[in-house]
Amino acid sequence: MSDRDAPEFRLRLVFGPDAMIGPGKAELLERIRATGSIAAAGREMGMSYKRAWQLVETLNGMFREPLVERTRGGAKGGGAAITATGEAVIAEYRALEAQARNAGAPHAARLRGLLRDIPGRT
Amino acid sequence: MSDRDAPEFRLRLVFGPDAMIGPGKAELLERIRATGSIAAAGREMGMSYKRAWQLVETLNGMFREPLVERTRGGAKGGGAAITATGEAVIAEYRALEAQARNAGAPHAARLRGLLRDIPGRT
Repeated sequence: MSDRDAPEFRLRLVFGPDAMIGPGKAELLERIRATGSIAAAGREMGMSYKRAWQLVETLNGMFREPLVERTRGGAKGGGAAITATGEAVIAEYRALEAQARNAGAPHAARLRGLLRDIPGRT
Repeated sequence: MSDRDAPEFRLRLVFGPDAMIGPGKAELLERIRATGSIAAAGREMGMSYKRAWQLVETLNGMFREPLVERTRGGAKGGGAAITATGEAVIAEYRALEAQARNAGAPHAARLRGLLRDIPGRT
């Protein structure tokens, strides 16, 4: 969070029982884009390679086109890249999150006003 | 979901490490309001009495005023009612959710357009 006093919005979109996207998948995609590696992206998130790869397979299966493609074959450490569809998914999810945060801000502020003081809040 | 084709928005607000509210807590509060009982509300959600009571204690501790009060003392099955603060929290959370859903709808629709066909979707 940029603003210490603003709550974090965690938004999950559920399209169906096996089709959902939320903060974890979005972050994984962004970290794959940044690192060029599924293993490295998973590591940064404290996730096993197996778990990261499972999430990528789930994402690739959810959409018409894969979101992540391997850029080299082989075992662990093979390169990975985000496809054009992957870029679109990241962009739409982050835009949706920003719109939701802006639209919800007055209600979030009123909820915050009802909270007991939290350690770390000014 | 009212509209079969619209995704479900699950929104969690994280104010701090021990202060968050999301769909589960909101639903529990609404079911306590409807049933007048923490045990019955938990049961409707497939939750143990202990788990439902723990969530109520967490909620009561998060806010300046309790959200739920016992209307009779004693063991399991004692009545419970939502306080004015509890009503405010439910209302703000649901309003926030509705605003977020409306604001995010165009992005959610574009994400849905990228999805592979899902069983059960028309």
